[in-house]
Amino acid sequence: MRDPRIRKYNKKFEYSYAMGTFPTIDLLKSLPNIVMKVLINPLGERDPQVLEVISLCKENGVRYEFSKELIEKISVKENTYTVGIFEKYRNQLNEKENHIVLFEPKNMGNIGTIIRSMVGFGFKNLAIIKPAADIFDPMVVRSTMGSLFKIRFSYFDTYEKYSEMFKRDKYLFVMNGSNNIEEIEFKKPFSLIFGNESTGLPENIENDGIKVKIRHSDELESLNLSVAASIGMYVSSKV
Amino acid sequence: MRDPRIRKYNKKFEYSYAMGTFPTIDLLKSLPNIVMKVLINPLGERDPQVLEVISLCKENGVRYEFSKELIEKISVKENTYTVGIFEKYRNQLNEKENHIVLFEPKNMGNIGTIIRSMVGFGFKNLAIIKPAADIFDPMVVRSTMGSLFKIRFSYFDTYEKYSEMFKRDKYLFVMNGSNNIEEIEFKKPFSLIFGNESTGLPENIENDGIKVKIRHSDELESLNLSVAASIGMYVSSKV
Repeated sequence: MRDPRIRKYNKKFEYSYAMGTFPTIDLLKSLPNIVMKVLINPLGERDPQVLEVISLCKENGVRYEFSKELIEKISVKENTYTVGIFEKYRNQLNEKENHIVLFEPKNMGNIGTIIRSMVGFGFKNLAIIKPAADIFDPMVVRSTMGSLFKIRFSYFDTYEKYSEMFKRDKYLFVMNGSNNIEEIEFKKPFSLIFGNESTGLPENIENDGIKVKIRHSDELESLNLSVAASIGMYVSSKV
Repeated sequence: MRDPRIRKYNKKFEYSYAMGTFPTIDLLKSLPNIVMKVLINPLGERDPQVLEVISLCKENGVRYEFSKELIEKISVKENTYTVGIFEKYRNQLNEKENHIVLFEPKNMGNIGTIIRSMVGFGFKNLAIIKPAADIFDPMVVRSTMGSLFKIRFSYFDTYEKYSEMFKRDKYLFVMNGSNNIEEIEFKKPFSLIFGNESTGLPENIENDGIKVKIRHSDELESLNLSVAASIGMYVSSKV
């Protein structure tokens, strides 16, 4: 695999960084084939988790390099011991599995938290409708705590392209949904569809399936996107 | 009320800022007595929500001032139309109501999201065990979307001080909890207690009540704090 130029992340890069030892371990365990190189801070040389990184690199034939300078050049947090450099990738979604669909998500923290909850509640397929935040931004990668490497995801230019490709029960989370999510009998495969942080789902999309709501007090206009998506997954994964 | 010196926020200030028109409206509606002054960007002079801010100021005898420069001096986001400057305050928690207890929370985004979910699920009392992030930091205020002004909250130097003051059913959210939260019959007043993002709850606190868990896949080590707290509130507010 060719050597990546190590510079501060830019979304045009064909590779990205998993910052931190635990995310790097998850990366090496889940997707060793895409790892281009691992950087290790000599300060962490004796840390037991760093030793695990080194042994995973050896096992999988992944190159690693000790360099405090390179890590400091690209990392945002102090005292990062390990950075995994990996090639960006795309997956096909599995049509037999349940999906999460995010319509034009903008907030990186929300995307990261949702991916973490996906792994928590057994959702392994994510469709992202563009325009959207960059799922490979190291901030998103970090906030998924390694969960990014455990799911499949795919970008779609429009919601319609997603919807035509996957015929199934679609549940659209809207503020005025007439169906309480707790009263729904979910049948696999289904999709949970969430609008973005500020504008929700456009009307033409809202009508592409069953409108659902999560009960909450009238005092609050709407739940935070990552909270709504996590509760949606929690409740629908009961069955 | 004396005139605040308008500078970039520092946690030592006795006042803070609600940035944005909607949070300022919530502030003026919920707690008009603590508002020292409202700044308005002349660019937003004709915006209907800004007009609502002005009319709320007049109604409540709150001074307002047009100044693009002052807003730019303190705001972090571009195009902020309104900033509400308010005196910091503390509340007594209501002993007849349910509480949320956060043990040494560090992440401002999590605290803001939890406060927003509190209003959504009818929890109006928050205990924060120190050391903790500053609840009045404009980033927290903004991320609560105005919900901060609808709850009571109080800081405690130690968990023990909180626990002695409030005798009641206490539910401690831990990774190895033996009780599934869905099987619990919650009786008001109760407290839901959450550890911090990285270290959870210390052992001596874990044993101060009923250990509960939120079911999730073994593939994930733990849920995000704001997700766990929101699901905890969602489930326990059913009764």
